[in-house]
Amino acid sequence: MDEVVLLDTWGSPFGMRAWIALEEKGVKYERKEEDLSNKSPLLLQTNPIHKKVPVLIHNGKPICESAIIVQYIDEVWNQNPPLIPSDPYERAQARFWVDYIDAKVYPTWEKMWLSKGEEHEAGKRELISIFKQLEETLGDKPFYGNERFGFVDIVLIPFYSWFYTFETYGNFQMEAQCPKLVAWAKRCMQRNTVSTILPNQKQLYIAVVEMEKNLQT
Amino acid sequence: MDEVVLLDTWGSPFGMRAWIALEEKGVKYERKEEDLSNKSPLLLQTNPIHKKVPVLIHNGKPICESAIIVQYIDEVWNQNPPLIPSDPYERAQARFWVDYIDAKVYPTWEKMWLSKGEEHEAGKRELISIFKQLEETLGDKPFYGNERFGFVDIVLIPFYSWFYTFETYGNFQMEAQCPKLVAWAKRCMQRNTVSTILPNQKQLYIAVVEMEKNLQT
Repeated sequence: MDEVVLLDTWGSPFGMRAWIALEEKGVKYERKEEDLSNKSPLLLQTNPIHKKVPVLIHNGKPICESAIIVQYIDEVWNQNPPLIPSDPYERAQARFWVDYIDAKVYPTWEKMWLSKGEEHEAGKRELISIFKQLEETLGDKPFYGNERFGFVDIVLIPFYSWFYTFETYGNFQMEAQCPKLVAWAKRCMQRNTVSTILPNQKQLYIAVVEMEKNLQT
Repeated sequence: MDEVVLLDTWGSPFGMRAWIALEEKGVKYERKEEDLSNKSPLLLQTNPIHKKVPVLIHNGKPICESAIIVQYIDEVWNQNPPLIPSDPYERAQARFWVDYIDAKVYPTWEKMWLSKGEEHEAGKRELISIFKQLEETLGDKPFYGNERFGFVDIVLIPFYSWFYTFETYGNFQMEAQCPKLVAWAKRCMQRNTVSTILPNQKQLYIAVVEMEKNLQT
């Protein structure tokens, strides 16, 4: 019997990826909520390099970094549904977009969030252009994994719960800028594995505002 | 018959990864040298997002991002030697260290290179601590892939050709700071696939000094 523990924290777009992947695979797990202002000895011990959530602990062995965790889950619980394409070229494409999302979305949001004036505006323009690129990449497919909800979908969809935060801080509308991407997010939200895990967008915004107050004090 | 083209540029630690992987697998390929100050239409067309080398073009299909290319090569030319461990946990560990190297080594070198005073010193200390961490991770194993030269080795070894550059700009000695890592690099250099590809350390330093002059004009 596998022992599976997920160290996670509420609202983390990275934690949500691991959590959705576990649900998609029907794995039995225990999810432990971390207080990032007072990290547990277990978190510090299982992710000594980055000291971040999520960490997946499988039979005592820790796996870190959300995109790596999703690949691990897909490889270990390799019953249906597969999350990562079996064709090497399609796998490479999926990995490319996962890297793109990791390199761009959260860092650009942070740049917009934590700056004012021209830097804030530049961050906003960049964030919108990233989502427009991701919308173009999706094209007319229902999911990034074509007919199937897969790796890229799992990596990107947690940011849907952040859309209201992005919109409010950036003073723009995702629906107006990227209607097809919003339609994709709503298709993903029809899955129980997504809709039961993603937090409410306005609650997340309130939490981010609180986080910002703590940064300033 | 496969048509394999590698778009690369002399001295790129990222290009070397793809090149070494092709040699390790005994793949027949054509390597095209790119002039990064005047990128070819083929590079711009095959990597429109990042516009960077390396790009592997396999039967007309482009694969971008060096760590993704190495995984692709391992999956497509899956005859011996395997580059990536077959065990999911070991794969996850290898991917973790590949991500660590990608996130840390070149960005920290750039920080040290392009700054002066305290920022330069901070970059130097950080670069040394990254290599010390990588040395600790290697431990007493001959290669990161244990007995076998593999994914993490391929991703890290190109930086050996940059050691003299790091040392000269940072005024430190890798041999004194990380003797076991230097010994590992010398073990890797016993492989023809590595020693015939890595440029001479002093030639690379001269090229970096030239590059710096161009940045300043």
